[in-house]
Amino acid sequence: MISHPLETRPAALVREVGLRDGLQSIATVVPTAHKIAWIAAAHAAGQREIEVGSFVPARLLPQLADTAEVLAYALTLPGLVASVLVPNLRGAERAIECGAHLMVVPLSASHAHSLANLRKTPDEVVAEVARIRAARDAAGSRTLIEGGVGTAFGCTLQGDVAESEVLRLMQALLDAGADRVSLADTVGYADPHGVERLFGKARALVGDRLACAHFHDTRGMGLANAYAAWQTGVTRFDASLAGIGGCPHAPGASGNAATEDLAFMLERMGVDTGLHLPALLALRERVQGWLAGETLHGTLWRAGLPRGGLVPQSPVPVPALA
Amino acid sequence: MISHPLETRPAALVREVGLRDGLQSIATVVPTAHKIAWIAAAHAAGQREIEVGSFVPARLLPQLADTAEVLAYALTLPGLVASVLVPNLRGAERAIECGAHLMVVPLSASHAHSLANLRKTPDEVVAEVARIRAARDAAGSRTLIEGGVGTAFGCTLQGDVAESEVLRLMQALLDAGADRVSLADTVGYADPHGVERLFGKARALVGDRLACAHFHDTRGMGLANAYAAWQTGVTRFDASLAGIGGCPHAPGASGNAATEDLAFMLERMGVDTGLHLPALLALRERVQGWLAGETLHGTLWRAGLPRGGLVPQSPVPVPALA
Repeated sequence: MISHPLETRPAALVREVGLRDGLQSIATVVPTAHKIAWIAAAHAAGQREIEVGSFVPARLLPQLADTAEVLAYALTLPGLVASVLVPNLRGAERAIECGAHLMVVPLSASHAHSLANLRKTPDEVVAEVARIRAARDAAGSRTLIEGGVGTAFGCTLQGDVAESEVLRLMQALLDAGADRVSLADTVGYADPHGVERLFGKARALVGDRLACAHFHDTRGMGLANAYAAWQTGVTRFDASLAGIGGCPHAPGASGNAATEDLAFMLERMGVDTGLHLPALLALRERVQGWLAGETLHGTLWRAGLPRGGLVPQSPVPVPALA
Repeated sequence: MISHPLETRPAALVREVGLRDGLQSIATVVPTAHKIAWIAAAHAAGQREIEVGSFVPARLLPQLADTAEVLAYALTLPGLVASVLVPNLRGAERAIECGAHLMVVPLSASHAHSLANLRKTPDEVVAEVARIRAARDAAGSRTLIEGGVGTAFGCTLQGDVAESEVLRLMQALLDAGADRVSLADTVGYADPHGVERLFGKARALVGDRLACAHFHDTRGMGLANAYAAWQTGVTRFDASLAGIGGCPHAPGASGNAATEDLAFMLERMGVDTGLHLPALLALRERVQGWLAGETLHGTLWRAGLPRGGLVPQSPVPVPALA
């Protein structure tokens, strides 16, 4: 933001996942040229990390079949961390080959969800991460490995997921060679008190190797949960422009926390995100045009920015990492 | 909730303001019989405080012209606190005459908003509260007086509102004879960090005479702000079923935090609200039918309750009052 001229590093980072988590959850197939325009505009608005797609078979997710091409473009932008999702070793090999900065390997802490979604148990995913690490190291690649622990707050198949199991799997991912881990409320079951408790325990266990919080707004708590995670010291958040996406188990429900709403909350709290909100809102309008017929989400686009500037009198300090 | 059989007192109270703040902000005039059905069903769902209307001239708010009749019904329901909004002494006299349990006198901490909305300066409202207190005492009435400090986090006319001014006016209301005060983010400008700061200071100043938090969801932070207020020890919240209402300065934007979403968040946090969520969702459907054509809000109605029950393993303790 213009109001923080002396800051050289944002105090919080909002990672855009709309091009992956968002687009994979809707029917519209966005042309590659639009994805590239989206990434260019997001970068111009100050976004410094974008999950550009997923290396999965095109027959499973035709929306993301152009991931290699989109990634190649993202890698040309200065200062941008280009990440991809990879469900297995084969996907990881492509990410390494294409030179992605970061690959996220999803693991579902819910055994039922893991079997239904990934056709592996969580511990089989941990073993796959060990193979991915070996392949990365053998290739002399610098692509970072992030283990993304999903359904960390429960799932629609299994119901509750034990905190102890989430923490065990998180540690197992790091032991298997992941460089860092993130926690995701895949289906919108988390509440802020639960977030504070689990993220608090997770950070006590692995410090700032817990690198990201991923919330869905399915039941309206996306921002409340992000605030709770922020209070535990998390400074990196996933979000999706216009909350694009949804929940396969709740038709019509919201997807990820909306990038522009989360960025506004953080900026309004005095936290520097490095983002230019009017530019984000303008990009939202373009993306809305490409997604005619899809249900979009978020609130800021309708209400507009408040009068009187964004920054309060006493900005909050950035929580210490680890 | 059924899951707290041993609790005799809810750990948090959600005051329904949809019949006042909600209905005054939309065009549809809801018939008295529907309002009465709404109150009966809300009471049956466990709501124990309802703001049933406002004693303002009918020509200004025809939607609320039947407040006396609606209040008379609400006063027949066991265990229900029936409150009304009163903008001045004349309204307060009617509330006292009708035997309301509680009257909320709104004060706008923004001078510009106060002049535009109430045609009085904030200090003139404080003086009116002194007259209301005198009238209440002279009548031997037990109607409680709540001073509702609005635009406490800024306003669309003036922009920023100084925290020191909010705190001064809050204390002045109590000194003038208000029994308690509440803080409202009338236009959706608050962020959770600001809420934590201002509510923290306010509670340090007046303890549990700060009795209620009133948030709008205009920019998506209604629940995040409620969580932040909860963390300072606030246990009473205003909300409106289906987030009915809106913001006159942002057409189409959300109104109050949605009752059912807020109740769900609290219950999911392990906080007992005394509310039956399926009954609230069923009531929402009825109210939606009465408000055909109006934009409603909220998320839980679409996503549904999660699998695996509501109550986490370790309920949070209720913050001590004062």
